[in-house]
Amino acid sequence: MFEVIGERINTSRKLVQAAVAERDAEYIINDVKKQLEAGANFIDVNAGARIGHETEDMKWLLDTIQPISTVPLTLDSPDPAVLEMAFAMVEKTPMINSISLEKDRFEAMIPFLTGKECKVIALCMDDNGMPESADDIVARATTLVEELNKIGIPTNAIYIDPLVQPISTDSNKGVMVLDAVRAIKAKYPEVHITGGLSNISYGLPQRHVINRTFVTLMMDAGMDSAIIDPLDAKIMASIKTADMLLGNDQFCGNYLKGVRSGAIVS
Amino acid sequence: MFEVIGERINTSRKLVQAAVAERDAEYIINDVKKQLEAGANFIDVNAGARIGHETEDMKWLLDTIQPISTVPLTLDSPDPAVLEMAFAMVEKTPMINSISLEKDRFEAMIPFLTGKECKVIALCMDDNGMPESADDIVARATTLVEELNKIGIPTNAIYIDPLVQPISTDSNKGVMVLDAVRAIKAKYPEVHITGGLSNISYGLPQRHVINRTFVTLMMDAGMDSAIIDPLDAKIMASIKTADMLLGNDQFCGNYLKGVRSGAIVS
Repeated sequence: MFEVIGERINTSRKLVQAAVAERDAEYIINDVKKQLEAGANFIDVNAGARIGHETEDMKWLLDTIQPISTVPLTLDSPDPAVLEMAFAMVEKTPMINSISLEKDRFEAMIPFLTGKECKVIALCMDDNGMPESADDIVARATTLVEELNKIGIPTNAIYIDPLVQPISTDSNKGVMVLDAVRAIKAKYPEVHITGGLSNISYGLPQRHVINRTFVTLMMDAGMDSAIIDPLDAKIMASIKTADMLLGNDQFCGNYLKGVRSGAIVS
Repeated sequence: MFEVIGERINTSRKLVQAAVAERDAEYIINDVKKQLEAGANFIDVNAGARIGHETEDMKWLLDTIQPISTVPLTLDSPDPAVLEMAFAMVEKTPMINSISLEKDRFEAMIPFLTGKECKVIALCMDDNGMPESADDIVARATTLVEELNKIGIPTNAIYIDPLVQPISTDSNKGVMVLDAVRAIKAKYPEVHITGGLSNISYGLPQRHVINRTFVTLMMDAGMDSAIIDPLDAKIMASIKTADMLLGNDQFCGNYLKGVRSGAIVS
């Protein structure tokens, strides 16, 4: 089953930031409920944008969201202290967003993750920046899986983000990431593949046509999760439809449910 | 490059049949021009619907279309006599639609095709009906390629139609044809894969969402041609976009041209 990580509760979004600053719980609760209705499997919570307030904002957000969230939360912070506080607060096994191979982040996250029961998003980023080939993505994913396995995170709890890059800068950027996803899934059938998608269309017009076509291709390659806005009906329609076409929707039940609820739109 | 076989000139369509019956050349010419502007790489011509008139209708259609068509024609008839007449009339190397493994059609078409320079659509249909598994599709495609090779049709002139079937009857019908296309392309890298697409969504609502998602998956699997209505802007947008994402559109040139012309729509 494809897993949607709902990305809306992020204080870098103006309305969310205002709601957090004003402790407007109703706004946050409504937003989360809408994400859940739209099919979010995780609710990402990022409180990083109000400098100096991350710990208290994260705490308030978790206090606000946890009672009404029927799905696990994705704790989204680069700060292990914030994550330790958040991890202690959540009831359902959370997802951590994220570790990478950048030296500072890697060294900060490994001690935090050691011995924890959690899922973790692992970015194929290192101190040289973005990966430059499919082989490069696969090599970074391999290191991430091996290092996380060493500290007790099983492969099926790892969500590799291969880092989608704009095709406007290089016509090969689509094939590069698709090939990498296929190779990673061949090497580690149990690993999950996730990430944002919209970078693919950066700099081009009619971005949603590109994004929805790209998510379909990525799902075919083996992507089984994405960090997206579940209220983006067009991308959700493509995900539900591709899931059906790829044989994951017996009797087309989820698709038909999506049509009846108005979620499958053109 | 993905090749679009424009399917509109078919006397089973009411307005086309009326235009043919009235010898309304202007209607036909306008329709073909629109298909060419939309990016058709072949114009399919089928005059089969007016019983007893196929030969004269096909002749009139070819006389009408050939002077203005900048692309080759797809001669679409089960009748070798009609095809012989049509083949003698066309200037550009045509595509023949179609041969299959049904005994009657196979035995009628092999003598016609022997020694001809043409492309040919080969349907994975035999006297047992539609294929029932991916292996079945691959076995039928193999027989078609081998038999056509024997009479001098090279593999790169063969367009295998794996016969898309409705997913509403069996959730596995999408995966079945996708797996088959991958296997056929692995076995015969030079062969083309074509066919109609809309059968996939038969019996389900919001069919165009399914069709556009499916063409994207089929292109990823190796489909490089389709028999479609080039004036269906949504399916054409998906094809151009997938072609770009699959690395076949340097500097995103065709995509951007599509946006400027208004052809990339959501």
